[in-house]
Amino acid sequence: MHVLFACPHNNPDDWLPGLAAELPDCRISVWDPAGPPSGADVALVWKPPAALFAHETRLKALFNLGAGVDALLQMDELPPGIQIVRLEDAGMAVQMAEYALYALLRASRGFGQYERDQAQSKWAPMPGLRRAQWPVGVLGLGAMGARVAQAIAAFDYPVAGWSRSAHAVDGVRTYAGSEQLPEFLARTRVLVNVLPLTPETTGILNRQTLSQLLPGAHLINVGRGGHLNEDDLLALLDAGRLEGATLDVFETEPLPVSHALWRHPRVHVTPHIAASTLRDEAIAQIAGKIRKLARGEPISGVVTPQKGY
Amino acid sequence: MHVLFACPHNNPDDWLPGLAAELPDCRISVWDPAGPPSGADVALVWKPPAALFAHETRLKALFNLGAGVDALLQMDELPPGIQIVRLEDAGMAVQMAEYALYALLRASRGFGQYERDQAQSKWAPMPGLRRAQWPVGVLGLGAMGARVAQAIAAFDYPVAGWSRSAHAVDGVRTYAGSEQLPEFLARTRVLVNVLPLTPETTGILNRQTLSQLLPGAHLINVGRGGHLNEDDLLALLDAGRLEGATLDVFETEPLPVSHALWRHPRVHVTPHIAASTLRDEAIAQIAGKIRKLARGEPISGVVTPQKGY
Repeated sequence: MHVLFACPHNNPDDWLPGLAAELPDCRISVWDPAGPPSGADVALVWKPPAALFAHETRLKALFNLGAGVDALLQMDELPPGIQIVRLEDAGMAVQMAEYALYALLRASRGFGQYERDQAQSKWAPMPGLRRAQWPVGVLGLGAMGARVAQAIAAFDYPVAGWSRSAHAVDGVRTYAGSEQLPEFLARTRVLVNVLPLTPETTGILNRQTLSQLLPGAHLINVGRGGHLNEDDLLALLDAGRLEGATLDVFETEPLPVSHALWRHPRVHVTPHIAASTLRDEAIAQIAGKIRKLARGEPISGVVTPQKGY
Repeated sequence: MHVLFACPHNNPDDWLPGLAAELPDCRISVWDPAGPPSGADVALVWKPPAALFAHETRLKALFNLGAGVDALLQMDELPPGIQIVRLEDAGMAVQMAEYALYALLRASRGFGQYERDQAQSKWAPMPGLRRAQWPVGVLGLGAMGARVAQAIAAFDYPVAGWSRSAHAVDGVRTYAGSEQLPEFLARTRVLVNVLPLTPETTGILNRQTLSQLLPGAHLINVGRGGHLNEDDLLALLDAGRLEGATLDVFETEPLPVSHALWRHPRVHVTPHIAASTLRDEAIAQIAGKIRKLARGEPISGVVTPQKGY
């Protein structure tokens, strides 16, 4: 098996020694757009340029260095029939879980208020929270969403999850399909979005859906910017219909300096850091799948283009 | 059994209906310092005035509406031989765990930095954290400390715990006794204090112990103000020997407006809110123990005055 490293934003020196150690029987090369085609069978990709596909025509499979494959699937140049494999968890789910929990606690435990109080040397304890008043709902119940939901349930919050097709998650009440979305939204105060971005989920966080949340609602978006109608969110915050939002992803990234979200007093902005790809974990997972492919065995995490993830 | 409610800072109307429902066979009264002694056998207490003990001389046991009994044990008027029962968990351990996790994540995930960046509309993702670089150590491994340690271990941080006598906690490396304290401190970057305040633990967080932590250390104190030498902490922060501190408890509470801790840029102050007593959980636990006492059965949570908890 010949493996190509085609990640122009990553330094090959950080990745090749680990790949070579995990795949001693493979030839490993770095994509060189100026040189002759490598003839590689599979490629590791992250934001690859369109030129890759016209140049490297023997590729049978692409291993994406991330869980979200929305940008890759939208490339017109993607050869039909090429297998796309997404990263599954690989250390990202725990990061998502802690991001969501941090944003939840900041709201439910009043930590933001205590920070403002400290600036005024003000000692003003608030009544303890009643967890029953903070039902959390997680949109998306794959490897990421399930871990997020279970991590929050471990702190005794009432947690439900919603996904396209039915999933069972221990300790989490689950809803499925568009017909159960209203019921899920109506019992949710803190909404955490961990969905993959697909044509079906684009714009799913909008005036109509967000208005169905419980009073005092908070939105935590760690999915994609394309899930959220940012103007709708700002309007709902200003109308007092939502209490706050913590956003890690945006329609345009980096978020433009002039964007109103930067300055909204009840919006927390982070620069797409909720879950970063961990190199060693990613190498181990991808190498394991390449070894299986070489032996003709099935692998998990293969993307279904029609579903979009 | 005659039960006395002797908590001058709490409204009896909030507590008596629940107590009466749980203890239909008991007489329940509210302490009246101006009236005749009630003759009660046991009392629920929270910051009771010294006059209680001279007035209510038939009390055999005190149920403290909190886990920490340090203030109670220091009262000179406490009748010798009276049984003191502390609240065990009763919904407080989960609150402690989330407080500690919030303070940890704020440091380890850089959320404080991202807040400062947002104030300048600055998009500046930092490299993902390596959990191995954030070993957490929990001082105290009772009901509170064990839950704190396990909650943090569930997020894949290396977690160790230290306690006076040996405790085993799943997934947590444990140290015991003063002879193992240096080894525990030397492997710890984020130190969470959940100890009870006793003569032995008073001042345990000082220049000598805090200096033994790993570089870039953070202190999270949810024990008691008396555990920490506040001047030593400020000196270590200013010398760059500690990176930050999140403090919920103080030598003097409320923390005086003029105190330097309010204004230190790397200290987070909260007004003793890490874990608040949950009324319904407390009533259920104390009523269960009163029923056992009435039947002559042993109960848990009885304080050993010599140990101080």
